[in-house]
Amino acid sequence: MAKRRGYFWPSYEIYGGISGFLTFGPLGSLLKKRLEDKFRRFYLQPLAILEIETSVIMPGNVLEASGHVENFKEPTVECTKCQRKFRADHLLQEFGKMTDTETEKLTLQDIMDELKNRNIRCPECGGTFSKAEQFMTMFATTIGPYSDSVGYGRPEAAQGIFVEFKRIFESARGRLPLGVAQIGRVLRNEISPRQGPIRLREFTIIDIEFFLDPEDKKCLVLKEVENETLRLVLAENKMKDNTEPVTVTVKEAVSKGIIKEEWQAYFMALAKRFLVELGVPEEQQRFIEKLEWERAHYSVQGFDQEVYLERWGWTEVSGHNYRTDYDLSRHMKASGVDLTAFKESESGGRRFVPHVIEPSFGLDRLVYVALEYAYTKRNKRTLLSLSRDLAPIQMSVFPLVNKDGLLEKADEVYHRLTNEGFTVDWDSSGSIGRRYARADEVGTPLGITIDYTTLEDGTVTLRDRDSWKQVRSNIDNLPDLLHAYFRNKIDFEDLGQLIERRKDG
Amino acid sequence: MAKRRGYFWPSYEIYGGISGFLTFGPLGSLLKKRLEDKFRRFYLQPLAILEIETSVIMPGNVLEASGHVENFKEPTVECTKCQRKFRADHLLQEFGKMTDTETEKLTLQDIMDELKNRNIRCPECGGTFSKAEQFMTMFATTIGPYSDSVGYGRPEAAQGIFVEFKRIFESARGRLPLGVAQIGRVLRNEISPRQGPIRLREFTIIDIEFFLDPEDKKCLVLKEVENETLRLVLAENKMKDNTEPVTVTVKEAVSKGIIKEEWQAYFMALAKRFLVELGVPEEQQRFIEKLEWERAHYSVQGFDQEVYLERWGWTEVSGHNYRTDYDLSRHMKASGVDLTAFKESESGGRRFVPHVIEPSFGLDRLVYVALEYAYTKRNKRTLLSLSRDLAPIQMSVFPLVNKDGLLEKADEVYHRLTNEGFTVDWDSSGSIGRRYARADEVGTPLGITIDYTTLEDGTVTLRDRDSWKQVRSNIDNLPDLLHAYFRNKIDFEDLGQLIERRKDG
Repeated sequence: MAKRRGYFWPSYEIYGGISGFLTFGPLGSLLKKRLEDKFRRFYLQPLAILEIETSVIMPGNVLEASGHVENFKEPTVECTKCQRKFRADHLLQEFGKMTDTETEKLTLQDIMDELKNRNIRCPECGGTFSKAEQFMTMFATTIGPYSDSVGYGRPEAAQGIFVEFKRIFESARGRLPLGVAQIGRVLRNEISPRQGPIRLREFTIIDIEFFLDPEDKKCLVLKEVENETLRLVLAENKMKDNTEPVTVTVKEAVSKGIIKEEWQAYFMALAKRFLVELGVPEEQQRFIEKLEWERAHYSVQGFDQEVYLERWGWTEVSGHNYRTDYDLSRHMKASGVDLTAFKESESGGRRFVPHVIEPSFGLDRLVYVALEYAYTKRNKRTLLSLSRDLAPIQMSVFPLVNKDGLLEKADEVYHRLTNEGFTVDWDSSGSIGRRYARADEVGTPLGITIDYTTLEDGTVTLRDRDSWKQVRSNIDNLPDLLHAYFRNKIDFEDLGQLIERRKDG
Repeated sequence: MAKRRGYFWPSYEIYGGISGFLTFGPLGSLLKKRLEDKFRRFYLQPLAILEIETSVIMPGNVLEASGHVENFKEPTVECTKCQRKFRADHLLQEFGKMTDTETEKLTLQDIMDELKNRNIRCPECGGTFSKAEQFMTMFATTIGPYSDSVGYGRPEAAQGIFVEFKRIFESARGRLPLGVAQIGRVLRNEISPRQGPIRLREFTIIDIEFFLDPEDKKCLVLKEVENETLRLVLAENKMKDNTEPVTVTVKEAVSKGIIKEEWQAYFMALAKRFLVELGVPEEQQRFIEKLEWERAHYSVQGFDQEVYLERWGWTEVSGHNYRTDYDLSRHMKASGVDLTAFKESESGGRRFVPHVIEPSFGLDRLVYVALEYAYTKRNKRTLLSLSRDLAPIQMSVFPLVNKDGLLEKADEVYHRLTNEGFTVDWDSSGSIGRRYARADEVGTPLGITIDYTTLEDGTVTLRDRDSWKQVRSNIDNLPDLLHAYFRNKIDFEDLGQLIERRKDG
């Protein structure tokens, strides 16, 4: 469906495809933009989190300082017969029934032993494997004409924020807490990605680095979410092979020390709410606490937010890590530049490296999730029930017939609405019922039909995608009404005079 | 100014910097987004141009087929003494007084001869140069674990559109003309970029590929721009060392065959208008026709739109090329996949490869241009006169004093406006005059002051950045009024009751 309707598809199909890259077609690209904007409104603006833009290609020394050159690696094995390479931990999970919690712990020697013990061979040709090696999963390149000027594709947008912290902090006049976000492409050179749109070599990340005074980490807005419930799969239970989530309120999670940082709990609650907004009910969400050896090298407590997907099972959509002062301290040491903050006090003041709480989202996966959860069937027809602030096309204009001046009138309405900034589709082919069906299938919330009455009194019919209800409204009132509707100020019924249901739905 | 106020600055400063990368700070990032959206409204939506998103990393075979692996190169020389490398044509321009029209024509041997004849030596150490070589200015990498799987950072977003043409064309039900755009990062591994924010190794491009039937290339909307004037520096005049532009109307340019394609003329007129919208008057713009040897390998007629910048002189902001069927034909041949369109007719129909007109903009440069042309002085103070749909911060909330409940009231107004989706700043420090000045300097169109009268009757003062006029308006009416104001439906005076000018400006 996503493919046929132009939401997204695997890239470079005409060249046989290359795994790990996804193309967003016209509808997908619009949906992705709207989701990004919704995220801004929901997650960034209420806390006045600033946004910046830094480069995808980063100089090697930055990623050495951050620990990525040393740590951003995955174990590979090569088949001695066909020379194909595989991610060793994925082989053990897929063919050896090990969990990722188990494989994360293994050394290269352990991996060889497990592959042998479990009698796992090359899935392509049955060959045995060469010695396991660590493969660096950053894309490497050189910057400029000198071969020793190594650069990498950034594996996270976070580092762009850390290296520019000094200037951002100054332009924000030194306030703490200070949230800084970056939404942009990141690159991860996966060894053999085989999960279609879920495991990508290039994707759009939303990284939020929330800088705090380590001696004043209180979250002043915790009250807003304290009764929100979270379903947590705790590390201590995972150790006992128990992945049943416990449901706790944010208040409880914090007071019992289950989530160590108040701000981390706050951002997790917001993440849960955001996914509910995307149509994912609470019971289809959970947070997995990472065990020590599962955590990224910079994290002291980490949770992955997961959503249940029909095809891919439980799938990570966001990660929540307490990165402490790890990154700023490393960059301070490597660059020799002071990245501390200063707080005045009666005794003269205190200089410190700010600590960081990081929520991080995969935007492409959120698009996938929103589409899957919007997909519904009604009367055997497909309906994409995206919320009105996510639907790529906001309204379709339908001339009832292509004669008697209706086409011209519809064209006039189309341009008027387009000039107002709305995303409007035009469909004049086939029966009105078929056109409604097509619009439902791509998730367009409103259908605007121009008929003979329009020529008489300037009114049009508006049809609601979800209820199939219809109202009649004057064209001149439409722009203001529609702006209010898409800002969620009024409901469909407020758009005009309710009319009796037509047979063609 | 751009740096101090957090618009943009050179990246990786704490590591000593690396040329060719730019960081957009909080204000710059917002401005860039608004400019991108304005471009969409102005350039894409009226023609229903579709947008897609493809990957930055592209497999090598795609860029071989497109001709980039063969042609995307620049001549370099290396100093035999200090081993530094330089772009040879730039040396000839900077130290040999040659024009780029002249250097574009030279072979590698010509370059060596000219360097010798003009006695040009290493600008760093005075050494002589080794033999000139072609350096490929794409970033190279490998995709996945096999070293023979070459990939490149895309040098243009256009190729992503060409390789996905089949699927987009199908989802658009085969309509022609069909416009497809992509806005995204591109990478060009410049040899030694020395023009700060103007010559970047990574930047955001807006590529529009407008697909046409080569036997039906008529532009149906040409009438809308036919009286628009264009200042053209023609190839034939350049050959005679005459770079004086001729001013012609679009109609003339097309009828006299100066611009060969109607759609190209149309898009150039739109490009001129867009730059006027950004504050660049006609006489600070021009279009340079490219000579045969200056054009990209895919182009049969090309114009560069240039804008005059105080520091950098005439600077390219967009390129307009007639790419014919070059790209689709090359990809068709290399992939073996049919990329033709079919048009039915009485005689049975006609199969053809669509032709392409391409307007292409550098978004980062547009940001730079908008800032430079918005920069004004008034009463010795700096004022950034960005249009209201570009200004990063839409309004600032100022509590007149920080006591007597004004702070709480201002906070309430701030949150109400933020919840409406506006970008609102908060400033409560210093005199109201200083706060106005700060807001003027970053280009915030509206100041909203909460004073004692606000507590009595719920009205606030609104101040206009450009005229310094003030009106008084009720808080409850503000959201609707401000939405109308920022959609350019009403003027500042319509926001409330005009009040007498205060002394503090």
